[in-house]
Parts: sequence; C-alpha cells; structure tokens
Amino acid sequence: MAGISRRDFLSKASLIAGSSYPAMIALGLLKSAPAEAFNLEGKGTGKHVVILGAGLAGMAAAYELKKLGYKCTILEARDRSGGRVWTVRNNTRETELDGSEQVAKLDEGLYFNAGAARIPHHHELSMHYCRELGVPLETYNNINEAGFIYNDGQGALANKRVRIREIHNDMRGYTNELLAKAVDQNALDLPMTTEDKETLIEYLRAEGELNPDKLYKGTSRRGYVVPPGAGDIAGKLADPFELMDIIKSGLIGPSFYNIGDYIFEQQMTMLQPVGGMDQISKAFERQVGKDIQFKSEVREIRKTTDGVRIVYADKGGNTKEVQGDYCICTIPLPVLSNITTDFSSAVQRAVDNVSYHQAGKIGLQFKRRFWEEDDHIYGGISRTNMDIHQIFYPSNDFLSKKGTLVGYYNFGDKAEKVGNLSLADREKLALKQGSKIHPQYIKEFESSFSLAWHKIRYSQGAFATYTTESRERYYPVLLQPDGPVHFAGEHTTYLTAWMAGAFESARRSVKNIHDRVMATQQAQVELKN
Amino acid sequence: MAGISRRDFLSKASLIAGSSYPAMIALGLLKSAPAEAFNLEGKGTGKHVVILGAGLAGMAAAYELKKLGYKCTILEARDRSGGRVWTVRNNTRETELDGSEQVAKLDEGLYFNAGAARIPHHHELSMHYCRELGVPLETYNNINEAGFIYNDGQGALANKRVRIREIHNDMRGYTNELLAKAVDQNALDLPMTTEDKETLIEYLRAEGELNPDKLYKGTSRRGYVVPPGAGDIAGKLADPFELMDIIKSGLIGPSFYNIGDYIFEQQMTMLQPVGGMDQISKAFERQVGKDIQFKSEVREIRKTTDGVRIVYADKGGNTKEVQGDYCICTIPLPVLSNITTDFSSAVQRAVDNVSYHQAGKIGLQFKRRFWEEDDHIYGGISRTNMDIHQIFYPSNDFLSKKGTLVGYYNFGDKAEKVGNLSLADREKLALKQGSKIHPQYIKEFESSFSLAWHKIRYSQGAFATYTTESRERYYPVLLQPDGPVHFAGEHTTYLTAWMAGAFESARRSVKNIHDRVMATQQAQVELKN
Repeated sequence: MAGISRRDFLSKASLIAGSSYPAMIALGLLKSAPAEAFNLEGKGTGKHVVILGAGLAGMAAAYELKKLGYKCTILEARDRSGGRVWTVRNNTRETELDGSEQVAKLDEGLYFNAGAARIPHHHELSMHYCRELGVPLETYNNINEAGFIYNDGQGALANKRVRIREIHNDMRGYTNELLAKAVDQNALDLPMTTEDKETLIEYLRAEGELNPDKLYKGTSRRGYVVPPGAGDIAGKLADPFELMDIIKSGLIGPSFYNIGDYIFEQQMTMLQPVGGMDQISKAFERQVGKDIQFKSEVREIRKTTDGVRIVYADKGGNTKEVQGDYCICTIPLPVLSNITTDFSSAVQRAVDNVSYHQAGKIGLQFKRRFWEEDDHIYGGISRTNMDIHQIFYPSNDFLSKKGTLVGYYNFGDKAEKVGNLSLADREKLALKQGSKIHPQYIKEFESSFSLAWHKIRYSQGAFATYTTESRERYYPVLLQPDGPVHFAGEHTTYLTAWMAGAFESARRSVKNIHDRVMATQQAQVELKN
Repeated sequence: MAGISRRDFLSKASLIAGSSYPAMIALGLLKSAPAEAFNLEGKGTGKHVVILGAGLAGMAAAYELKKLGYKCTILEARDRSGGRVWTVRNNTRETELDGSEQVAKLDEGLYFNAGAARIPHHHELSMHYCRELGVPLETYNNINEAGFIYNDGQGALANKRVRIREIHNDMRGYTNELLAKAVDQNALDLPMTTEDKETLIEYLRAEGELNPDKLYKGTSRRGYVVPPGAGDIAGKLADPFELMDIIKSGLIGPSFYNIGDYIFEQQMTMLQPVGGMDQISKAFERQVGKDIQFKSEVREIRKTTDGVRIVYADKGGNTKEVQGDYCICTIPLPVLSNITTDFSSAVQRAVDNVSYHQAGKIGLQFKRRFWEEDDHIYGGISRTNMDIHQIFYPSNDFLSKKGTLVGYYNFGDKAEKVGNLSLADREKLALKQGSKIHPQYIKEFESSFSLAWHKIRYSQGAFATYTTESRERYYPVLLQPDGPVHFAGEHTTYLTAWMAGAFESARRSVKNIHDRVMATQQAQVELKN
C-alpha cells in the first residue's frame, strides 16, 4: 500500500464497479481494512519534534512519530493528558477562568465524560487506535425511544414529559396516513405504475401502522397504559395524541427535530470506552507518557534559523525553553491567540478569528438510578427547550445502585447563560429544570460538577466552528506550516468536535513533517552523489 | 401494597391526572417501582409443589415459592437449566429429533445465544430478576443503520448489498419531499392554519433533509464515498438512489419493512446479559439448583385425591415418581402433547392444538471480525429475502480478534426448509447466501453450530403462536388449573416468545397456588373456631 494514501485508495476503489472492495478482501488481496494503514517509509531518527498539547492530537502524533524514529517532547499545560477528552471522577479538580473552584464528590466507580463522550462507528481512526492500544469499547446507546421530550410552552402536550416513542410513532402514523392519501387520490404527479403506487402505499402503511382504511388510529409501538402480561392481561393501549395537539404544543418544532437521530455522526452504532473516555488518553499516555512534560505552560513559540524554540513556564513557575527541528501545535486557537509567537500575520489572523462553540455540561450524582428503576430508561437522551437542553443517561453499569447522568449539555446562548451562573446556581438550575422531567431529582440528588468549556483555562471553547466564510478565509492558512510549525487538532479538519478529527490531523501533521524530512534526506543524498 | 396488584395499582394510578406516579415517587410515597413488588402474604410451609421444567418459568416459580416457605421439586428432562434460554459455547452438544448430532467447536470465550437473545427495556420482570439476582446487563444494539439489506431479485439495486442507512435516508427524503409538496399545494384537505402548515412543512424538511426548494437531493446522513478528514479532505457524498430504483428493486417490499425497528418489543434500548443469555438461567440455578433433578423425563402427570403424582424416567432410565400438593407444568405444549396425563378433555385439546413457531439459527465462528474491521458494523442486523433471512452481529467483545455471528435466524417456511437440511447443508447454505453480503465469509469461516427449534427434543418449537381463534378457544382453558396442575410458560401469556412471559406466568401460577393454600388455611381456621 506504500505510495498510495488510504483516501486515494478508497476513492480509486470506489471507481471500480460494485463490490470489488469486499471481493478483494475475500480474495485475500488486502490483509485488513486499508483504513488503518499508515505505513510511512523511511526514518526520522535524529530529528526532534516539539509537540504542544497532550490531547489526542498531540499524543497520537508523538505515538506515530516515535514509530518512525523521531524524538518527541510534549509540553502540556495541565497536570493530566487528554485535553477535551476528560472524565470527571471523585476528586477531579477544576478552576474556571473566573476563579470558581470545584472538587468532584463522586462515589467510587462513578464518573461522567465532561468532554468527548461518544464514538461514531465509522470514525475509522478512533476505532483503529482503540483496537491497536487495547481500549475495550461498549455500545453508547445514543438513541433511546424511551427518553422524554418536554416542551416548556403552550399547548395540550406542553409542560409535561412525553415519551419520544409516542411522538415518533404518532408522527410516523399521521404523516404516512397523509402521504398514503395523497398517493391514493393521485394528488401528486407521480411517474409510477399502479403497481408501484400500491407498493409505495403498502410500505407507507407498514411505516405508519395504518389500519385497513389507511388511517392512523394509534399503535402498540408507542407503548401501553397497561402492558401485556400473563393470563388474561392482554394489555391496554393509550389513544394516540392528536396531530393538531402535537403541532400546537411545539413538539415538532425546531427544538425537537430528529436530526440528532439521523445524522451520520450520531446514528447507531455509537461506542464508548468501558470505564470512561479517558481510557483512550490513558492508553496513549502509556505509549508516550515519558515524553510528556506536564504543567508546562507555553509562553512563546519562536521560529529559529534551523527549527523552533518554545519558551514555557514549568511546574515550578520557572521559565524554560526547548528547541526542536519541528513543532506540532495542537493548542486550541482561543488559547493560542494569547501566546506570544512570531507567526505570519495570515496565521495570526486565522488563530484570532476562528470561532469556537460554547458548551456546558453538568454531571449529577443520584442515590439511585431512578431513570432505570422507575422510568425504564437505559442510556439515550431526553430533550427539552429549557436551558438544560438535554439530559444524557449513562449507557453503562445498568442496574447498579447509584449513578450519574449529564443534567445538561447545552450550546451557544444557553451555554453562555448557564455558564455565567455561579456553580451553586448552575446546580440549582439543572435540578429545577430537570425535576420537571424527573421529579425524583428532588429526593435522590447527591452532588454535582459543572463546567463551561469556554471558561476552562486551557481550552476556552468546546470545538472550532467554521462558517462558510471562515472555512474559506482562515482554514486554508492553518493547513500550511508556518515555517517549522505545523498545526493539528480538530480545528484543522472537517471533523471538528470529534476525536477522529484529532487523530486524522495528527497523522496529517506527521506525514507532512516526515515528507519534509525525507525530502531533505533525499536532497542531501543527491548533493553527495 | 398488599391487597392491590401491581396492575391494579398502575391502572388506578393512570386514572389520576398527569405525573402523579413520578410525583409519588419523588415524595417518597413509594419506596421503589411497584413493578417489582411481589409481596404475597402468608406462608406455604409444609406444601410441596412439583414443577415440570427448569426453564425460566419453572425456576422463577420455585424461587418465589421458596420465599413463601414451599417445598419445591423441579423435574428437568435436559442436563441443563434454561430451556429455550440457551447459550452455545465450545463443546455444547445437541441431538435433534432426526438423530443428527452436533458438538460445538468454538474458541474459548466465544458463544452465541441459540434461543432468547435480547431483553426489551420495558420488560419489567426480566429487568427485575437481573437486578435482584445480580446479572450484569449491557446494551444489545438491535438497530444499526450500518447493517445491510440485500434483495435477491430484479432491479438496479437488487443482488447487491446496500446499507440500511442509504435506504432509510433516501426514503425519508423522498416521502417527506412528496408530503411537503402535497401540503404546500393544499392537495390534502387539512384543517390547519397557514402557520400550522408551515410548522409541518419545516418539520418534514428536517426529517427528509430537503433543500430550500423542499426537494430531496441526497444527504450526508446516508454516508460518504470519501469521508471528511483532516486538511483539505472535505468529504464526498454519493448521489442518492432513485426512488423508482428503490421501489422496482423490492427494497421497500414486505421483506424490508422497518417494523422490527419500530415495534415496542424491539425498539432501543434492548439489553443482554454480559457473557451470554444463560447467565440468567445460571443465576436462577444458583438459587434453586438444589431442587432441580436433571435428566428426569416426565412420563405421566396424574391427579390424585389430594394432589399430584408425576411419573418420570430418571437419569439412569429408571421409572420414578414424585408426589406433591400442586404442580406447575411449564412443559412446551408440543412436548406435553406426547406425555400421558389425565387432563380434562378441554385441556388436552388445548395442549394438542396451540401452534408453535418454527425457527432456525446458525452460529458461525470466523477467524476475524471482518464485519467490524472492514464494514464498520458493531451489532445490529442485516436483512435479506434469502432463506437466511437475517444476519445478527454481536453487540459484545467489540474489537476482539475472532467472533461469532448468527448466520441465519429464520421462521416459518424458511426455517422448515433450512431445518430439514443436513447439518452440513445448513452450513453450506448459510455460507453461500451470507457470502453474498459478506464475501469475507469464504476466507474467514471456521465452524458452525445450527439448530431448528422445532426439531429440538424438549422444545419442539420456538414459541407459541396464537391466532385470534386459538386465543379465544384454547388459551382461556390453559389459564385455569386442571385440578392441582397449573400451567405456566410463555404460552400462558400475551408475551409469547419473550422471557418476560415466562416470568409473568411464573408469578401468576405462584399467586394462584398461594391463594388456594391461603384459602384452605383460612377455611381450616374457621372450622376450628
């Protein structure tokens, strides 16, 4: 596979008709999925790469560089690796930019993922590194029909919790009834035979569970008032909601679109490491931990005649410096923006002007898993138009006694508003709004730990968020090295916000640096001959 | 809660307006979910119940009876507990009714669930017993958009594998486009304001990811030809399939309706025990194992003047008998039909005439998990109209080296046809048809173990299947005890095929017997006074 990149290969393979790729695998032409191949040729021995940030991008870059013989030094401002891959456990400490300090009080074994929390099954490098580094994964149950939606507003179905499955199945019923009617009455100018129309109508009937008259009159898919049981308990259905009540109550409004169920990144299957997302950063740390200098805050990034010079404050607060041949800078742009550099003006402008998303999360520990015991919710999400936006239920440790859930995961204005509250008031808001969905909150609550990613010192944002304009104007600048400095991290990808972005960017930087080193070696060889 | 059944309670609670039940929990009026309450009063000490069958119904009945002081004897024809809860591992042996014998050759740690394989989150008693007996559960990823559909037939999209997400998203696109058009053109006589129509149209646009002209022109939801990556790799979309190609290729025909995704029993969240479904039967066996007599084949069920007498062949083939005050008979009806009894003619007719489903499964062990490594499939199902009907991928042990999948799970005619093949021919069929979806089968296959439930000696069917007529005519007869003999098992419920049916029926029988015993005790007390 040398000399042809994975993407080149995939794109060429897709030109060949039909099932050639699986056929090639079956025929043994490929040893394993090309997705994982990263077999760069040549050695970088003697070259020193200084990596800024021990998040996934930085550590993956070091991991791959070291396979190629490079020396790596990773400077990390925090006392832990992982960056925005961060699992909060008992005694986790954090002081936000405004000085508010927290120490997590969670029972042994309880945790929540404050940052990255789910892995799409098709994020090949995320899966690959878990496989290669032995990080066990389990299903992250992203979509749960038993979750609730709660619209704070007007209408017969507002201000109460409604099961997602009730709305999903009622809307499937009504919309398929309407479309079946339109097709049946030839109201649409469809270029179809009568037989095709019948096939379509039968499909719509199955989709909506329409009755023989093609009308939606409710379905067991939305659940029971009395579930079927033994003996003479045949089960009792509830009536469906009225379509007009659903519409007038805002339940098919923008806050409740099913986009999160459908988009490629969040479709099932999603996965998570057993024991917390930081199992991935810990796995990388086992590989490159010796090269990480923790509590080393970068102060200056300087281009020198033959490389790079990084000035930093070490854990004692002393100013130190480290020189290297190349640098991979994974520092989030809002943080980098406040570091002294001699970047080109184009780079500096890009660093200053790419926006980052605001996002907030709160972990709540409860005495018992009432969402499982009382409400039969095992993983998944409840959604609301309130400030808390979403409640995430854990996909692990089902049936155990205590549990944590994510009491809010919000963005933009909501994240800013809630993030600006005191820690106590964030907790109060999460409990007040959350208890409208789960009244059990009041009795079962034990402790909270909240964070506003835009107020977390070494992140200052959840993830880069490009507009069409900034993608055109600033993004290409960050893809080019500024002298010896290469940029990596999710913000240098089309996979912003995802760990896969960190990994893809790490490989990209490694390849670009290695290409330069190989070209120099080649030039030296040619010079000698 | 004494004196009011769970269902009475739920049904009464549902009469009280709105969120009274969660409110009651929050107020501490209920200690835990009433679902789990089974607090019968009084003691059955001195009474002996003979239970026929150590499946879940029989063991759960014994477990509950023993809490009440009863003596229990469980006769089990097999050398294992669990009945149709059966996990096949290395060296599992089975001889089907036609004499064909198999010994499973699976690597250490590999298994597949030959019978029950998934637990709906709302099956309260299944969840309850796992909680009470300490059986850890994990997500059973029943719905996976990355699975394939494969239609063996005519049309541009037939005879090739197509991702489920491609069809799902294309159909959501086209049907929502059509309905948006119909609503927009007032083709439907909708009693809606203009504003309501706009709300509905915007919802349809979000559902189908329609463009500003409300047309479906493809979506990233269906996946990429080249996925987005780092640097300048923005990703490349494939064109959607044409609606007419989908219809003409049979991909929205009956074989591929999405009913399995929608029905209440199979919606997410589904769960499975960590390590195989037999962890549940093993947990019960830890509780009541002392009372089980294995390899004891029931020959006669006799009503006596003061109870019941069961004649059986013990493991040495000797005829033995055991007497009891009551009997709970959980033997599947097709098996029971061949046992000598003095049941009433009505009962005997019911036993003889309730139909059971035919079902077949094959477990296939492969050298590597190519469905994960090559195809990014982690759990879920591929569907086809071929005889194999479905391929089930494991929801556990992701990323490990080897794996088993269920190469077919079929019913009715297909199960009969495949079940009638020799073991070697079943394997051949599974590999031949399966390799159309996964060409990797050919190179990676190691071993198989197949079964036809209707040919398994002590089951002779997968589960009871009632018609409207048989539910009316025979079912009520089985709900009444025939003298001392009470019937239990999934066939005595409206939860046929599910483990929850076994549990609900066990509790029902225990309650019915205990009510009789308590009534007798009460009568004796009154006689004395």
